[in-house]
Amino acid sequence: MREKDVFMDRLKQQLSFLMEIDKQKEIIRQTYLSDGSRKETDAEHAWHIAVMCLILSEYANEPIDAARTVMMLLAHDLVEIDAGDTYAYDVQGNSTKKDRELKAADRIYGLLPEDQRDYMRGLWDEFEAMETPEAKFANTLDKIQPVLLTDQAKGKSWLEHGVRREQILDRNARTHEGSETLWSYIREIIERNVEDGFIRGEGSGE
Amino acid sequence: MREKDVFMDRLKQQLSFLMEIDKQKEIIRQTYLSDGSRKETDAEHAWHIAVMCLILSEYANEPIDAARTVMMLLAHDLVEIDAGDTYAYDVQGNSTKKDRELKAADRIYGLLPEDQRDYMRGLWDEFEAMETPEAKFANTLDKIQPVLLTDQAKGKSWLEHGVRREQILDRNARTHEGSETLWSYIREIIERNVEDGFIRGEGSGE
Repeated sequence: MREKDVFMDRLKQQLSFLMEIDKQKEIIRQTYLSDGSRKETDAEHAWHIAVMCLILSEYANEPIDAARTVMMLLAHDLVEIDAGDTYAYDVQGNSTKKDRELKAADRIYGLLPEDQRDYMRGLWDEFEAMETPEAKFANTLDKIQPVLLTDQAKGKSWLEHGVRREQILDRNARTHEGSETLWSYIREIIERNVEDGFIRGEGSGE
Repeated sequence: MREKDVFMDRLKQQLSFLMEIDKQKEIIRQTYLSDGSRKETDAEHAWHIAVMCLILSEYANEPIDAARTVMMLLAHDLVEIDAGDTYAYDVQGNSTKKDRELKAADRIYGLLPEDQRDYMRGLWDEFEAMETPEAKFANTLDKIQPVLLTDQAKGKSWLEHGVRREQILDRNARTHEGSETLWSYIREIIERNVEDGFIRGEGSGE
């Protein structure tokens, strides 16, 4: 193949990936916008936590490379284009989630030229493994953003799903690993919402 | 003030900024998603061009700091929370755009602690000034993303607004400054859409 063809092939692969991920804007999450008007999309969520990372990285438990963490956050939900968004408190959906996401990762990152496929896939694997300080902090942001939004939206999605405090705490069992400071702030928000009746506390049945 | 209060004040300012920018998800652009189903939001646009920057930075005319450019892109449209999105081909709206955006920048970045206000405002000023290689490339991505999407959506927003080739070329007078390669690729897409009747060419009347 001529050099120019190779070059154009590369650009075309990149653009085909970049047009494919446009579908991230059509994956609807369970979290409402802060004014409760509608649910947010995956793309909006990814943007929001990327900006959160810029502003809140000082609270990471260990020093992190904020730029690398931002990259991780921008790409962390791309698999949902094929695998869909699984609501945090959907037990059945969560049991098959990993398989569906692995298949999706192969297909979607596979649209890219090899070097970039490996780079982007590496970011996603790192996020999922939750071992590096960056991945831990990224996971913390991914978990606390819906709590902050739902608090603003007067508990809307918690009420709709009858979510219990225990479910939220279980799901956030590792959130403190990225930032004790942010987690302790979020802990207070959760307790306030239990008191206000937006989250079900102990002894409220079910 | 006690140390803990100062600390909490800082975190509260940061979170108040981060909740305020949730409104970026309610600013609707004129560009349709690639499948033409609805128009995209500012937050989705910012996310999309940030990922584009990750993948396409190799085509910048000059070497760039891709991470810094991503930060710039994530924050570049925040002023539209107050100033609104001005459609590229709205002459009247564009004449008052700068004033509205400057006021918005003062208010929105002003929600942050001083050091971060200056950092984020600095990114925005840099983007607007279009002088650094990073700002030039960021502006290129900001301009070419709607062309790529509208091409996928069979010219939907161009047809709705009766957009002429000349308007697109005027608006993109500086797009090549960030990347000659990407601009030449986009140039071909524009010509193809003129041929296909999605963009009005010369001699097609007002």
